[in-house]
Amino acid sequence: MFATLADLPTPVLLLDGFKVARNLERMRAHLAPHGVVLRPHMKTAKSVAVMRDLVGGPETPITVSTLKEAEVYASAGVKDITYAVGISPDKLDRVAAIRKGGCDLSVILDSVAAAEAVAAKSRETGDAIPALIELDADGHRAGLQSSRGEELVAIGRALVDGGAYLKGVLVHAGESYAEPGEAAIRASAEGERATAVGAADKLRAAGLPCPTVSVGSTPTATFGQDFSGITEVRAGVFMFFDLVMQGLGVCGLDDIAAGVLATVIGHQPDKGWTLIDAGWMAMSRDRGTSALPVDQGYGVVCDPLGKPYPDQIVIKASQEHGIVAARPGSAAKPLDLPLGAKVLVLPNHACATAAQYDAYVMTDARRPGEVLGTAPRFRGW
Amino acid sequence: MFATLADLPTPVLLLDGFKVARNLERMRAHLAPHGVVLRPHMKTAKSVAVMRDLVGGPETPITVSTLKEAEVYASAGVKDITYAVGISPDKLDRVAAIRKGGCDLSVILDSVAAAEAVAAKSRETGDAIPALIELDADGHRAGLQSSRGEELVAIGRALVDGGAYLKGVLVHAGESYAEPGEAAIRASAEGERATAVGAADKLRAAGLPCPTVSVGSTPTATFGQDFSGITEVRAGVFMFFDLVMQGLGVCGLDDIAAGVLATVIGHQPDKGWTLIDAGWMAMSRDRGTSALPVDQGYGVVCDPLGKPYPDQIVIKASQEHGIVAARPGSAAKPLDLPLGAKVLVLPNHACATAAQYDAYVMTDARRPGEVLGTAPRFRGW
Repeated sequence: MFATLADLPTPVLLLDGFKVARNLERMRAHLAPHGVVLRPHMKTAKSVAVMRDLVGGPETPITVSTLKEAEVYASAGVKDITYAVGISPDKLDRVAAIRKGGCDLSVILDSVAAAEAVAAKSRETGDAIPALIELDADGHRAGLQSSRGEELVAIGRALVDGGAYLKGVLVHAGESYAEPGEAAIRASAEGERATAVGAADKLRAAGLPCPTVSVGSTPTATFGQDFSGITEVRAGVFMFFDLVMQGLGVCGLDDIAAGVLATVIGHQPDKGWTLIDAGWMAMSRDRGTSALPVDQGYGVVCDPLGKPYPDQIVIKASQEHGIVAARPGSAAKPLDLPLGAKVLVLPNHACATAAQYDAYVMTDARRPGEVLGTAPRFRGW
Repeated sequence: MFATLADLPTPVLLLDGFKVARNLERMRAHLAPHGVVLRPHMKTAKSVAVMRDLVGGPETPITVSTLKEAEVYASAGVKDITYAVGISPDKLDRVAAIRKGGCDLSVILDSVAAAEAVAAKSRETGDAIPALIELDADGHRAGLQSSRGEELVAIGRALVDGGAYLKGVLVHAGESYAEPGEAAIRASAEGERATAVGAADKLRAAGLPCPTVSVGSTPTATFGQDFSGITEVRAGVFMFFDLVMQGLGVCGLDDIAAGVLATVIGHQPDKGWTLIDAGWMAMSRDRGTSALPVDQGYGVVCDPLGKPYPDQIVIKASQEHGIVAARPGSAAKPLDLPLGAKVLVLPNHACATAAQYDAYVMTDARRPGEVLGTAPRFRGW
């Protein structure tokens, strides 16, 4: 094992477990007074170790984005999982197998066709598969629009009459990722809540059950004030945070728990460029901050302990090269670091950057420079 | 195993071995009359099976972008590898270990500091590490600029006098990826050639050796006409090709060997959207075509056998959702595919998309719909 950051081969993904725990604690404290369940989205972490050691262990209900995640977390003992991407018929055998293994896996859907497929599989297996009807609050991607009240009820009836279990409704305010500032995000949170509660009311008025009313995204969960009518909140990236969340005002730079440690591999002195061995393969191609008021390039460059160098970002990336320079328009002097020096780069989007690695190297802000171990990640579908 | 495409769990990465072989054959046929060695860049494939079965086996000299690639390919018997990213001192122990294992691994560098580190490691191990001096032809990223002739010679002397092996010079016309059309790319190829030959001449005039004069990128290798003074050509993505290369005019859509098979998971009928289970995790966040005349979104949507649906692209992607719609401005009707139907999505950038997977599912254009097996990939550093 490597005892200190200086010994690590680069590029390598660091995860500060202290910050992850603090981010989780803060979110739980924010939601606790509202009596809603936090169902963390484990698509960012994709790690049994993180689930077990930092998120609350297998008793915590979770959200996932792939059946692979559901399979891995269920094998690790998680008993309550929502697979929050629209189900297609070809995936139902895997859903049935996970449920048969003892995990209460729920699916989501937004059409009568999908409801009928889930109902048919429920009848075939003799196990009523729980399904949430996905709603669209803001035109972001999937989900039934509020105007389609008749279809909502038809989907509910197809589930109930067909032998599945209508578990409730679910909505994700995906557009909240594009709206900087607390006021805009609060409006988005209220839109999410109203959409979910409105649909739950419609189902109940039609004599259908709706025990679960699920909302969530990191921005809306963070700034939401009113959760009346809601039973659970889903959020994921808040565990790690990233530059997109910081750019939206959802967290500070110091809350970002994941970063890529890299090594200086060269310079272009005439241009003020420092080249590092973290290119887009190490950072991912995610440029989420390009749509925000402050474009952070491929990441904010810090010393190895996470203190940002003023205005230094990765302005450009090839597969294995990152070019560090002052932010366009800044008068900051170029970095003055020799060949072989180490830097830490904070990512645009923790989900995308973490996906480039098979493990986290665990650190702790209270023990600067120390390496505490590794936590394996998984990936795939 | 899965016998046909219809049986595959999605998203999944398909690789047409027939097209890979054809792309390689075409490149070799183009270069053969010029008497230059093709040193394929294996950073796209990252697969021992692809190296062994499609690229020519361990006798073929190769290029790599990480020491992990060098280690894996060397373990599989490859004897001649160039690690074509600037070396930093902390990586030299791994370089020495790979060389000790019997692989003739070369490094590249563009500073006296790096040359001195390579020379010091050469003296320490008693093994003269071969180094190529990296040159900058177009301001793309790393490499010594032509104006720095004195530094070029100083680097050469630091290697030779210090006990390393000055193997030659190397240049990559990275800006050729941003210049559509054969004429622009030919100019780029000539710039690459002139830069390399000019530097080789300077080294020789100073009494230094320069046996290897290495150039290359897929566009310049494809359209280059004059290779005089050049000893080897490097190129990588041409094996698989992708929408960026197609957009530059370097290949046709039908030459693209890699694609992501995905499943329809929903619809937004009011918007003409079809949702698929290939989001940016499946396609990567690479949007290379956004800078080209035709923006292909997150990919061109085809039937499972690779026939494009006219003007249908992935216009938007979340982590696990792709939104398929007609290209902006197109009058094409929305896709009319039911829940559960399969599509094949051609990627912007094969290197980035392939990196999202642990294996290729192998297909062959001459045996449509059949699954021939899987070829494992690796990743990491």
